Amino acid sequence: MDFAFSDRCNEYRDKLLEFMEEWIYPNESVHDAQIEESGDPHFYPPIMDTLKAEAKQRGLWNLFLPHSGWWGDGFSNLDYAPLAEIMGRSPIASEACNCSAPDTGNMEVLTMFGTAEQQEQWLRPLLDGEIRSAFAMTEPDVASSDARNISLSIERDGDEYVLNGRKWWTSNAFHKHTKILIVMGKTDPDGPPHQQQSQILVPVGTPGLTFKRNLKVFGYTDNEGHAETIFDNVRVPASNLIANEGDGFMISQARLGPGRIHHCMRTIGAAERALELMCQRVLERETFGRRVAERSNVQDWIAEARIELEMIRLLTLKTAWLMDTVGNKGARMEIAAIKVAAPNVALKIIDRAIQAHGGGGVSQDFPLAGMYAGIRSLRLADGPDEVHKMTLARAELRKYDPEFRTDGGSSIAPGGGRG
Amino acid sequence: MDFAFSDRCNEYRDKLLEFMEEWIYPNESVHDAQIEESGDPHFYPPIMDTLKAEAKQRGLWNLFLPHSGWWGDGFSNLDYAPLAEIMGRSPIASEACNCSAPDTGNMEVLTMFGTAEQQEQWLRPLLDGEIRSAFAMTEPDVASSDARNISLSIERDGDEYVLNGRKWWTSNAFHKHTKILIVMGKTDPDGPPHQQQSQILVPVGTPGLTFKRNLKVFGYTDNEGHAETIFDNVRVPASNLIANEGDGFMISQARLGPGRIHHCMRTIGAAERALELMCQRVLERETFGRRVAERSNVQDWIAEARIELEMIRLLTLKTAWLMDTVGNKGARMEIAAIKVAAPNVALKIIDRAIQAHGGGGVSQDFPLAGMYAGIRSLRLADGPDEVHKMTLARAELRKYDPEFRTDGGSSIAPGGGRG
Amino acid sequence: MDFAFSDRCNEYRDKLLEFMEEWIYPNESVHDAQIEESGDPHFYPPIMDTLKAEAKQRGLWNLFLPHSGWWGDGFSNLDYAPLAEIMGRSPIASEACNCSAPDTGNMEVLTMFGTAEQQEQWLRPLLDGEIRSAFAMTEPDVASSDARNISLSIERDGDEYVLNGRKWWTSNAFHKHTKILIVMGKTDPDGPPHQQQSQILVPVGTPGLTFKRNLKVFGYTDNEGHAETIFDNVRVPASNLIANEGDGFMISQARLGPGRIHHCMRTIGAAERALELMCQRVLERETFGRRVAERSNVQDWIAEARIELEMIRLLTLKTAWLMDTVGNKGARMEIAAIKVAAPNVALKIIDRAIQAHGGGGVSQDFPLAGMYAGIRSLRLADGPDEVHKMTLARAELRKYDPEFRTDGGSSIAPGGGRG
Amino acid sequence: MDFAFSDRCNEYRDKLLEFMEEWIYPNESVHDAQIEESGDPHFYPPIMDTLKAEAKQRGLWNLFLPHSGWWGDGFSNLDYAPLAEIMGRSPIASEACNCSAPDTGNMEVLTMFGTAEQQEQWLRPLLDGEIRSAFAMTEPDVASSDARNISLSIERDGDEYVLNGRKWWTSNAFHKHTKILIVMGKTDPDGPPHQQQSQILVPVGTPGLTFKRNLKVFGYTDNEGHAETIFDNVRVPASNLIANEGDGFMISQARLGPGRIHHCMRTIGAAERALELMCQRVLERETFGRRVAERSNVQDWIAEARIELEMIRLLTLKTAWLMDTVGNKGARMEIAAIKVAAPNVALKIIDRAIQAHGGGGVSQDFPLAGMYAGIRSLRLADGPDEVHKMTLARAELRKYDPEFRTDGGSSIAPGGGRG
Repeated sequence: MDFAFSDRCNEYRDKLLEFMEEWIYPNESVHDAQIEESGDPHFYPPIMDTLKAEAKQRGLWNLFLPHSGWWGDGFSNLDYAPLAEIMGRSPIASEACNCSAPDTGNMEVLTMFGTAEQQEQWLRPLLDGEIRSAFAMTEPDVASSDARNISLSIERDGDEYVLNGRKWWTSNAFHKHTKILIVMGKTDPDGPPHQQQSQILVPVGTPGLTFKRNLKVFGYTDNEGHAETIFDNVRVPASNLIANEGDGFMISQARLGPGRIHHCMRTIGAAERALELMCQRVLERETFGRRVAERSNVQDWIAEARIELEMIRLLTLKTAWLMDTVGNKGARMEIAAIKVAAPNVALKIIDRAIQAHGGGGVSQDFPLAGMYAGIRSLRLADGPDEVHKMTLARAELRKYDPEFRTDGGSSIAPGGGRG
Repeated sequence: MDFAFSDRCNEYRDKLLEFMEEWIYPNESVHDAQIEESGDPHFYPPIMDTLKAEAKQRGLWNLFLPHSGWWGDGFSNLDYAPLAEIMGRSPIASEACNCSAPDTGNMEVLTMFGTAEQQEQWLRPLLDGEIRSAFAMTEPDVASSDARNISLSIERDGDEYVLNGRKWWTSNAFHKHTKILIVMGKTDPDGPPHQQQSQILVPVGTPGLTFKRNLKVFGYTDNEGHAETIFDNVRVPASNLIANEGDGFMISQARLGPGRIHHCMRTIGAAERALELMCQRVLERETFGRRVAERSNVQDWIAEARIELEMIRLLTLKTAWLMDTVGNKGARMEIAAIKVAAPNVALKIIDRAIQAHGGGGVSQDFPLAGMYAGIRSLRLADGPDEVHKMTLARAELRKYDPEFRTDGGSSIAPGGGRG
Repeated sequence: MDFAFSDRCNEYRDKLLEFMEEWIYPNESVHDAQIEESGDPHFYPPIMDTLKAEAKQRGLWNLFLPHSGWWGDGFSNLDYAPLAEIMGRSPIASEACNCSAPDTGNMEVLTMFGTAEQQEQWLRPLLDGEIRSAFAMTEPDVASSDARNISLSIERDGDEYVLNGRKWWTSNAFHKHTKILIVMGKTDPDGPPHQQQSQILVPVGTPGLTFKRNLKVFGYTDNEGHAETIFDNVRVPASNLIANEGDGFMISQARLGPGRIHHCMRTIGAAERALELMCQRVLERETFGRRVAERSNVQDWIAEARIELEMIRLLTLKTAWLMDTVGNKGARMEIAAIKVAAPNVALKIIDRAIQAHGGGGVSQDFPLAGMYAGIRSLRLADGPDEVHKMTLARAELRKYDPEFRTDGGSSIAPGGGRG
Repeated sequence: MDFAFSDRCNEYRDKLLEFMEEWIYPNESVHDAQIEESGDPHFYPPIMDTLKAEAKQRGLWNLFLPHSGWWGDGFSNLDYAPLAEIMGRSPIASEACNCSAPDTGNMEVLTMFGTAEQQEQWLRPLLDGEIRSAFAMTEPDVASSDARNISLSIERDGDEYVLNGRKWWTSNAFHKHTKILIVMGKTDPDGPPHQQQSQILVPVGTPGLTFKRNLKVFGYTDNEGHAETIFDNVRVPASNLIANEGDGFMISQARLGPGRIHHCMRTIGAAERALELMCQRVLERETFGRRVAERSNVQDWIAEARIELEMIRLLTLKTAWLMDTVGNKGARMEIAAIKVAAPNVALKIIDRAIQAHGGGGVSQDFPLAGMYAGIRSLRLADGPDEVHKMTLARAELRKYDPEFRTDGGSSIAPGGGRG
């Protein structure tokens, strides 16, 4: 259980920190201004091309991928954790480094389960940062926290599959570069609960596929967008299926573990930045004759932030280390634990940072309210807190009663296309 | 301490509930769609004119005003509380009934302190709903929670006053009907701490007055807008002064008490609606073989919501009753108490309602995230929680040590122009 | 909904406050010392006789009883609330005024359901303060929060009933004056769920009745004691039955409402005293160069205490008023709400008062830890929080789905013989 | 940052777990019964001699001592952490293994600062478990959270020192084997703030030394006792001084770091046991037709307990590892963090376990209320939460303003003689 940063990790941390200072932080406002000025919240800001080129040239590219292959050597989860945390400090760093969800999960799925042809067509340009992708899983009409509720139909018809149904929270749908969707649906609605589902590739532009509208997050129209997506007799070649019919649930499981911990890593970075902003603010402002930083209630906020950040970082590192050593399945409980803990801790810190900023805290002048909105939605995406807690409680209770069951069979908790 | 609804109150409650059912709820989506379609978040949606006409015709108009005059008989705070709660259930009802901040505070100030001329020019059209108004108090460069930090300068120059400085959170600034601002600034920066300030009327369009930009609340561009406002040698006639030089602090005190409790009343309505939405949602959705409503953690949320709503409603009623019977000053501690309690209780309820709604909860499909953003900002506007708690603690400690002082002298807590 | 204190209430408040100052507070340490010196934690301290005589002579006697009769005019719940709060400030006041549980509930049951003979034999000496009594309901082997789990058997055998079973938390069992028990058990285990139970009088000393041992509350051996009680073929005359066979559940319901709100009233008094002690302490002590009272985190504690105390007091008053006006059954939801809210608020306040007292806070030098222990057990007695919340949630959900059911049928929540 | 258990640690964990199963758990009730039957809460129960002999014979002895010497090889803090956690599961294990406070701290002080003579006279029998010891630091009349408040006077008089003053929370004072006290006082009240204090050895029985009374903890009379201690012209030879005059503060610092983390380690063990008891209980009990374990609110409690336990364990391990690698001073912030986090997490878990146990939870039938009382007092002992948070906040703020100061100079937080 050694969490020390490896030499390779340290080397990339240094490079990444330098990149953040030199390129990311100074261009956050440029990025926002370019979108603002365009009048289109989904506009692709040219500065992002500059940042991507710079990141790629520095080797700060695809750091999330734990697998090795023709694209180079993968990073272990433990090595990636501190890098993802650093990227999490800024809302624009992950995209610049080709490490943003849901591409990360899609790339990992294609790496593990894609045919050579699928990889050539979609994985290569994704890894190169030439295109982006989306993942269509959650549905508006059912509680997606129970994967068995999923209802989009994928029917075989000769050499094709025909898709019918409705999804939402298809993140990245409105990104100008998005060319491909991975879609989860049912090929065998009457099969065994965990073999009904399949996953299939659907190119953007396929007739019958419509991004009906964008879903906002606390008023924010995210640049990449979260679509409500209509599938109306969408036909794709049978070769677009990922792995085999009935593998959909298994593929979800494979992607969601890493997806969840990546979010936690980035969340820690966001919370660290919120704490930093809070400290700077309370040192600057004065009320009733002394600096706000001298008030002991604010000091309590700062101390509690530091304590809880230390704790979620350690749990994230342990989880990453477990994924590396015993596999994602062996780390299932820790993944559930940190998926609950990290966003809740971060929200508490960000909320207090907002409070310390007065009216500015809820406005666009600081990144705090935006962080809050994004991380608040993480308590729902990829399984709401309550489902992960159910998983944890059941495991705990089974230590004493191995037969213990509560409801249903599965605790898998897909959710809002962010993983 | 009788909180029973009076006959008049009951009569207006019935009328208002009917109006909500028949006109407000069915037109919420119309209102939003009209703004959305216009492409201008500050667009004035025509449906509002219909709603205002209907409300006025039903006598559901200016209910907030506790004073009687040529406009009719005022409502006591206790009578108004349940009416404001009902209006608080919808984001569009207060405007429809001419009961929305900051006009309410401005109208009250003009009623109490305006000259006959000022009343004729500004109060009458405000009461008629023909124009709207803004209040410019909070400043971006200082911690406005300490009123003495206010720095906008109001200098006498012959028959005029000249204003220089910068404000923000000038709510209503971007409302198409806004014609007049009440501005707080310093006429005597070297005077005794609470006599340095004055308030003055500044018509929209006065040279040198610029609404530089809109401040968002989380990601929301509120229809009425919250401006950053520049005063660059803004000149107004000396007769625009409200009351006398040095009265600014006293006038603030007079408006902020009612302003704060009005927010609390509306907040309770919003929280009641969130609870209602939560109950409906968990009765509809099923996970792992049974309705979400049957889960005991969700039942705990519902029960705690009901308990805490009862408590903040009673404290609001008591505060209103005190304002009616012993005056706003005598109710100062209760106003501080409910100003802290109501938003915090409401945020907890709304947050859980969001959680119960899954991904939909943070989106525009439900009013929950919008309510959250608005009420979160109430923990900052009109004085942050921490300042009100300081006031309460100091009063409590003085029961045992009458000489007890902490910092500074004043605990007045202006803040974001929403009062 | 008028919560103003009536003239009669004000008159008794004044008398009671005077009695507290002159007799109760000065004798708290005498009371404890007499018990300590006796070497028997259940010793009856002679000072209590003095206090009782004094209270009786001042008319501060049986104030809890809402019924009128040969013993005089009863107090409404609303009139009693502020009096019970005052008594709650001291652990010895309720007994001195013959207003302590479970006698209060027992006296009320005998008033409402006792035969003339039962009243003569037991109610009269209870009202006179000559004897005390206990209530045996909770059982150690089942979750008593579900009343249907109760298993003590009451079998008719000729002119007698025979009791067999085991109870615990029989409060008052070790009080030297306790002469009579009201026992809840089953006369018809196969009847309809809510008609299986009966209640019956069992005199202390009846063969087969044994107080096996005392249960501590945290480390406290309460003076009155809480017994584990064995019923081994305990025979009593059939005339000892209260009301009829099958009425046990109904009688419980009748007593538990008042019992619960009495606890809440006293709890508020205890919390007020904790707040008072906290304020005094932080004004006295100095750390790092200034008084602890000047620290803003401690000020937040004080302010939150004041806010939350106001809220639970108002909810208690409303509940009392409802009981007076629409009956205990009509106030069922409010009783459940305050039963949850009051102890939780009080525990938070007391815990912070302990923290403000440093090491002394957990010791016998202050009444704080004792208050904490007693009030912590209230979250379990008379139904745990969770059962009351279930009741509240179910009622809320039924507003939208009148058929809504979760588990079982009954939400009655007996619990630890303190009501 | 490798937290994996070493081979030596694993070997001792196995031995210790076996010892717990075979000797400790079965004898907890024996231990309590022997004390109970004696009629003296400070009675030394003979079973403890058996347990100590058994532990010593198995080599489970003095595991806490990080130093090596004639007594054998010390354990690193990282190796000791999981062992202390296991001992923390039972209130009697630490004493059985000669690892209980405040002896541990006293032994460490004598190891590091004692003269050969002092070591021979006091350290050897302490290490052998023949005698026990106490530490007198906290004072009743001042806020000991500010070390500079300490007022006991130590005056040189020829070859002797004369002590005058009053202490409390002298833990172990009533243990039948306690023979020696380490006392903190002032030799130079006018010196520089951190050089006024000295520490000195005072044998039990020295004239003028009186253990005036025992302090209870939430009603509990702890077997070892916590004395209020009077020093009335207590004379000891000058050679009893530990290190030099003025070294008292430095010696405190040296002991308090390890003392605090030891408490955290044991606290985790106690919380694990509470979680275990909660799981077992809810699996056994049924309400309203199903097992309590199936209720999702209780499952949330269990899941949150597991999540938070993982986090405090990791932070404890990191802190121990830091103490081993960069020294106690280098681990100062982490010690402060875990000192706050561990007791608060544990109290939340234990409180919920109490709730899950119904009335039994607060009684002597389960160890829960006792654990609660003991760990609640840890939030005060060795520095209250608030002082540790101040330390942490100050360090955080100094990252941005190196000159930042709040109050006073020192954040050392002595407190209730348990370290």
